[in-house]
Amino acid sequence: MEITGKSIVGFSRGARTDETFRAFNPTTGEAVEPDFHSATDDELNRAASLADSARISYGKLPGKTRATFLRTIADNIEALGDTLIQRASLETALPDKRFIGERARTCGQLRMFADLLDEGSWVDARVDHAIPDRQPIPKPDVRSMLRPLGPVAVFCASNFPLAYSVAGGDTASALAAGCPVIVIAHTAHPGTAELVGSALMDAAKSTGMPEGVFSLLFSSGYEIGQALVKHTSIKAVGFTGSRRGGRALMDIAAARPEPIPVYTEMSSVNPTFFLPGAIEQRGESLVTGLHASVTGGAGQFCTKPGLVFLPESEASLAFISNFKSEISNSPTSPLLTDGIRKSYDDASGKRATEVTDHFEKENSDLPGFSVNPSVFETTTIDFLNMPDLNEEIFGPTTLLIKSQSKEDLIEIARSLEGQLTASVHGTEADLREYADLIAILETKVGRLIFNGFSTGVEVCPSMVHGGPYPATSDSRSTAVGSRAITRFARLVCFQNFPDSALPDELKESNPLNVWRVVDGEFKKG
Amino acid sequence: MEITGKSIVGFSRGARTDETFRAFNPTTGEAVEPDFHSATDDELNRAASLADSARISYGKLPGKTRATFLRTIADNIEALGDTLIQRASLETALPDKRFIGERARTCGQLRMFADLLDEGSWVDARVDHAIPDRQPIPKPDVRSMLRPLGPVAVFCASNFPLAYSVAGGDTASALAAGCPVIVIAHTAHPGTAELVGSALMDAAKSTGMPEGVFSLLFSSGYEIGQALVKHTSIKAVGFTGSRRGGRALMDIAAARPEPIPVYTEMSSVNPTFFLPGAIEQRGESLVTGLHASVTGGAGQFCTKPGLVFLPESEASLAFISNFKSEISNSPTSPLLTDGIRKSYDDASGKRATEVTDHFEKENSDLPGFSVNPSVFETTTIDFLNMPDLNEEIFGPTTLLIKSQSKEDLIEIARSLEGQLTASVHGTEADLREYADLIAILETKVGRLIFNGFSTGVEVCPSMVHGGPYPATSDSRSTAVGSRAITRFARLVCFQNFPDSALPDELKESNPLNVWRVVDGEFKKG
Repeated sequence: MEITGKSIVGFSRGARTDETFRAFNPTTGEAVEPDFHSATDDELNRAASLADSARISYGKLPGKTRATFLRTIADNIEALGDTLIQRASLETALPDKRFIGERARTCGQLRMFADLLDEGSWVDARVDHAIPDRQPIPKPDVRSMLRPLGPVAVFCASNFPLAYSVAGGDTASALAAGCPVIVIAHTAHPGTAELVGSALMDAAKSTGMPEGVFSLLFSSGYEIGQALVKHTSIKAVGFTGSRRGGRALMDIAAARPEPIPVYTEMSSVNPTFFLPGAIEQRGESLVTGLHASVTGGAGQFCTKPGLVFLPESEASLAFISNFKSEISNSPTSPLLTDGIRKSYDDASGKRATEVTDHFEKENSDLPGFSVNPSVFETTTIDFLNMPDLNEEIFGPTTLLIKSQSKEDLIEIARSLEGQLTASVHGTEADLREYADLIAILETKVGRLIFNGFSTGVEVCPSMVHGGPYPATSDSRSTAVGSRAITRFARLVCFQNFPDSALPDELKESNPLNVWRVVDGEFKKG
Repeated sequence: MEITGKSIVGFSRGARTDETFRAFNPTTGEAVEPDFHSATDDELNRAASLADSARISYGKLPGKTRATFLRTIADNIEALGDTLIQRASLETALPDKRFIGERARTCGQLRMFADLLDEGSWVDARVDHAIPDRQPIPKPDVRSMLRPLGPVAVFCASNFPLAYSVAGGDTASALAAGCPVIVIAHTAHPGTAELVGSALMDAAKSTGMPEGVFSLLFSSGYEIGQALVKHTSIKAVGFTGSRRGGRALMDIAAARPEPIPVYTEMSSVNPTFFLPGAIEQRGESLVTGLHASVTGGAGQFCTKPGLVFLPESEASLAFISNFKSEISNSPTSPLLTDGIRKSYDDASGKRATEVTDHFEKENSDLPGFSVNPSVFETTTIDFLNMPDLNEEIFGPTTLLIKSQSKEDLIEIARSLEGQLTASVHGTEADLREYADLIAILETKVGRLIFNGFSTGVEVCPSMVHGGPYPATSDSRSTAVGSRAITRFARLVCFQNFPDSALPDELKESNPLNVWRVVDGEFKKG
């Protein structure tokens, strides 16, 4: 499949505009063909207008029809074969193997939502029957369910070119909920975006979806994305990226004449606590585990452990020494963009002046966007006094903090901002002993992990990939797992409607056989 | 029970500050004893600090314990007897009978949430078991459920002194979810607020709740309420009131360093469509029904039909004439506050200059805050050209619009802002004929009503009292019905936790016997 560099606007392709940009090969730093053409305001407006006109017809399609669309997207992505894997690898310097896994996750997510639609109960259908002779006033017949929010703007993530980009989690859950989607490609992997976008457009056509259910816009700057978030046709936003970028979109959405929900996933340092029992018993395997978690994906996972707390002990000293040695022996790795490389260098340089000890190598002579892994060390007191040390550094680095006491850890936990995850390594006795710490951590995170590292997010019905601000904009929901579909839905109630005018999920005979709450009782059929 | 005029801060009473205000008797316009003392910044900070320290202990209480607390609140409110009814009636000029009904609804809501907690399945517990030998990587044990958001600020509604005030829907759902609540009393009915607040504080004490689970602050101005929404301890806001007031709180919450969810219910004109079949067949009963719906509660219900569309027909002319005659024969009624009376007068005066016909009587000589009901008439074209005509006028008035064609109605429906409700009166044949209209209305409202009026909100599991902005700040949720509990909850996930450290809802044996999604299957036990 040829990469044209043109946006996808409904079932048409955008123009070859003069404003262009290219992807880069992070290993060499060289630009990669072809040119990508930034979408015009007219193209944006046409994509929004098509999405708006597809809104009702797409939203009213039976769940099983949308499921077929999602499965066809997955099939089409797989049919891209090595072309997709090689382009993604070229644009990101991440290995083919990573993209084989990420493609499986992406297609798995699409099929998970398809299964959810086939089953149908996700709509939370509720039926309360009328009681015409109730005193003092009759009880009406009331029925309700989740319905789509309307067109959604999705921003591709730099660090997940497949699983959180064009046909990634946000797009899959929004399309599943019945919302048209307009995607803004990431400038770091536009070729990957176009390949997946073409697969998605083809799926929309071949399964008879209305034009406008999907568009993909390229842009070299921020203006098109911001204009999209301001557009009156857009009813929700999904974004994965930096704290500054995410907050900017939150502020734009909140300042609209009609504010809309925004789901931004932004910033997390994923505090990791080695309690005394753990480091004594399993110091060596923890070194290996932490090293893999900090350097995996070149340290560019949102769940990378960026803060690691250790007790003051002999065992900790050995742990730190071994961990530094692992880091010093690690190969360099290219980061995704020159901007990320520069931020890593700048933030590392600043941090080096703020901590008690650090290990880093010079990065200036490395090719492309490559950097060396690094590690920093500080004390509890310095950590509490320097809020900067809470800031995420995207890339293969972490901060170790030796803590004196349980009280210190509790004070630190209270001071933490919202996080995607917190991990606690210890014994079951430690968990009991540190119950107060766990209780505070629970108020700060979306996911608590015991004796495991935070990277690696299982896609399953119970997963919560979310957390209080600034980890995300909306701690009530999750970006991963089947519950993500509800982010793009809202409740609609039908009072005294005749059966023939009700959605199938609310009809008296329950023709779709979904789980419902009927007169207060959970039941099926 | 004596009304002291002092705030309730945890288990203590606020100071007799110098900044005071009084309630008014809307029938006479005279101030009513005693003085109410505005809370100080210190009292606000103490309430917030107590709420923050109660957050974890209250949130971790078993659902059944919180249920006992809610039921005790209901019992204590009922035990206030006629004292409460008489004070509420004195402060609002609404009849005793109304408050006997509203008290029943308020206590019913508290008990509905208590039942929901006893049953326990509202937490959406999910369990995915580990598969240690899964390839290429092991599957972890992942479990998740809804947990409380944290302390909630609740603003009392002018028009529901019981059901949407101190122990009303927002407070009941937040306390049920496990969140401490700080209520800002409404200046229109502070005595009612103190009586209910005392009942609530007594319930918290007698059932052993932690201090800080509830506070009630009086304030003559906006500063204390705004400072509360800005307070770092506050994690969500519930508000029912004007569009301007609600939007101001939304903007404050969105501009916080840590933005928080805000549930404001603000403004709705509840468009009501009389399709041809209805007005031909049931014109007379529709006059009676519309009149009752427009003038009930002195037109101060958020679901009052403020826009009524009729076909161009003989039958419609008769309808309009009869409706005007009903309005002209209606008694005057006192509005809740002098501010509401003034807004009603100002908005009516302005509207009279914008419409083709109107019926209103002079209000200037009426006692207290009393006004006459009124009715306005305009054309489709004028309505589409004058966005002002979409604005809610709080009080006993409505706007009638004669429409030429189905196309006009569809154009109007597209132009509407978000609404709590839309009502359609007609035959089943009309519903089919106007399916396009219904489909557009569905995107604009929280509740669609067939052959019924929008006032009167049934409290039941399926009710949706919400809708797109500006009806509310968050169309994804409902303020009425059992689903409201989820507004004050967020998802938390536990990965690889030992059974003993899990919340009961997630323990392997399911000791609370709640409905759960286990390895993707809905089941109990």
